[in-house]
Amino acid sequence: MPGTKRHNPIPLLLAAVSLLLLASAYAQEADQLQRTAQALFAPLPEVAVNPDNELTDAKVELGKMLYYEPRLSLSGVFSCNSCHNIATYGVDNLQTATGHGWAQGPRNSPTVMNAALQASQFWDGRAKDVEEQAGGPILNPIEMGIPSQEFAVARLASIPQYAELFAQAYPDQAEPIVYANIANAIGAFERTLVTPSRFDAYLQGDATALTELEQTGLRTFIEYGCAGCHTGATVGGNMLQRFGVVESYWEATRDFVTIDTPTMAMDVGRFAVTHDTNDLYIFKVPTLRNVTRTYPYFHDGSVWDLRDATQIMARVQLGRELTDADLDALMAFYATLEGEIPAYALQLPVLPASTTETSRPQH
Amino acid sequence: MPGTKRHNPIPLLLAAVSLLLLASAYAQEADQLQRTAQALFAPLPEVAVNPDNELTDAKVELGKMLYYEPRLSLSGVFSCNSCHNIATYGVDNLQTATGHGWAQGPRNSPTVMNAALQASQFWDGRAKDVEEQAGGPILNPIEMGIPSQEFAVARLASIPQYAELFAQAYPDQAEPIVYANIANAIGAFERTLVTPSRFDAYLQGDATALTELEQTGLRTFIEYGCAGCHTGATVGGNMLQRFGVVESYWEATRDFVTIDTPTMAMDVGRFAVTHDTNDLYIFKVPTLRNVTRTYPYFHDGSVWDLRDATQIMARVQLGRELTDADLDALMAFYATLEGEIPAYALQLPVLPASTTETSRPQH
Repeated sequence: MPGTKRHNPIPLLLAAVSLLLLASAYAQEADQLQRTAQALFAPLPEVAVNPDNELTDAKVELGKMLYYEPRLSLSGVFSCNSCHNIATYGVDNLQTATGHGWAQGPRNSPTVMNAALQASQFWDGRAKDVEEQAGGPILNPIEMGIPSQEFAVARLASIPQYAELFAQAYPDQAEPIVYANIANAIGAFERTLVTPSRFDAYLQGDATALTELEQTGLRTFIEYGCAGCHTGATVGGNMLQRFGVVESYWEATRDFVTIDTPTMAMDVGRFAVTHDTNDLYIFKVPTLRNVTRTYPYFHDGSVWDLRDATQIMARVQLGRELTDADLDALMAFYATLEGEIPAYALQLPVLPASTTETSRPQH
Repeated sequence: MPGTKRHNPIPLLLAAVSLLLLASAYAQEADQLQRTAQALFAPLPEVAVNPDNELTDAKVELGKMLYYEPRLSLSGVFSCNSCHNIATYGVDNLQTATGHGWAQGPRNSPTVMNAALQASQFWDGRAKDVEEQAGGPILNPIEMGIPSQEFAVARLASIPQYAELFAQAYPDQAEPIVYANIANAIGAFERTLVTPSRFDAYLQGDATALTELEQTGLRTFIEYGCAGCHTGATVGGNMLQRFGVVESYWEATRDFVTIDTPTMAMDVGRFAVTHDTNDLYIFKVPTLRNVTRTYPYFHDGSVWDLRDATQIMARVQLGRELTDADLDALMAFYATLEGEIPAYALQLPVLPASTTETSRPQH
């Protein structure tokens, strides 16, 4: 056109084409990442289904009351919520739990959030589901300290409102207040503790749900091999693995531990249950859902900083040293796993009054 | 009229008149009881107003978070809610509280429900209001065990979300995270813990809100002199009185105590604060709001059955032995004082995450 400056259009065209190709490659790569993520992980379901434990409103509500019930401890001081506090993402944020008589437990309290979706329960996977798990701490002398199943049942049965609630939750049973139902109802409540987050929106197809840095973190998480164990809807919780593949975990954690507690002893892991030397230092791979909130980390709660914990995992499991940039990206990805606690679970139930028949708390 | 049987109408007329007079007398008596009750007691207000502590949403919400905050204990195990559990009408239902290191406190945890309406706080009335009270247990070595005000402030100040929430709650202050504001915010939340019941409907003019037996209980409560001390909106909590006017309380409670704990020592009451012999065995008259739920009873939590506690009070304060019928009526009246816990207070807040700067829990 007259009056306009002449120029050679070829370089500009080439630049535009390069940009388009780059954008397309980037889009392909982003798309590829999303598809890989969809293959490795899964969005959280609404509740954790167990065909053998139908979730009725009556059962879940009873389970919630029992979850918050301090009379399920001998002392009347501890409820399930003491160590798995719903207000703090289902953990106590202590190195290891404090229980009856101020006893300090040997392992860190795992989160109850999304726990029902895992393949097994406890750090050594010794319980198959939350229904089996829930019955354990009540009777543990250094946790809730109830002396026997009969004691727990008698205490609840002395409270007429519980008799009624168990009858409603287990309408087909002649004797609804039994120990198995205490654990079953608590398990039913725990099946509702699912915390969807931005990561679920991403897995469901919304590519914009994660920022670029968060996607870089996710890519790092997959490419470096973290997702080899931390997989599925719960990003962990689906398998048992040796803690310390490349080097002993207790050597690595010792370097990072800065707290003024005694050095943690070696924990033999699942070996303590099976007495099979193949199970030495075998632990359940923990879920990373809400990992930003479930500090301190590892079965011994020895490491408080998520960057440190991540560096240790890279070192002892993968023989790799992470850069600061790697860690920044991984922290950004972890943040996308922080979900929403169900409002229903946060609503404290008003607990029924004891009667003159109710066994009294024992200090 | 022909065909109808003749009869003398006079006796029937007299009977009708007597019935009318009786009904009228009963109505007068019922009306009189209601007016006497209105003079002695008062309906609960919506919140407990303190002109020096304006209740803004930001302050009350912060106070609720702090109330449920286990990091306000050195160990990270106890929050205000541990001993004043909102789910159990603001008490722990223990003889005396269990605190840091499994220490057993010397006195029963009083209910936080309606506490802000009382004339003073603690069993010996040594704090003038809930704002002053709230700062105490946090620093008590056998309760929450925080070593100093500075420690508590530094722990909260290390959490950015708290810095923000304190700034919102105290917008005119240059340094909003100070110990006084921790107590002030908790106090603000506690001012909302008011539990209206059927008794309030009755005091507000609804004569049918109480059954006949409940009214008999109320009449007994007034006529026997209980209302001499248990008065006002909180049916107690407004004055200090000697426990054991007619005989020593520890003699009387010993007869009723059936639990297998060591015999409680004599508690000198307010004397421990003032060292004035006039204050020997002087305690705050507790509120009877929700008394059906705040077992066990008395400053030492020595008596679990409300009938026993009532009989003891009649004996040691009034020199009177109650009949079973008296006790039945009084229990019926007490039930009308059981109110509703505010739904807002029962909704657990999600607590903010610690940072690497946050001081760690100490077992």
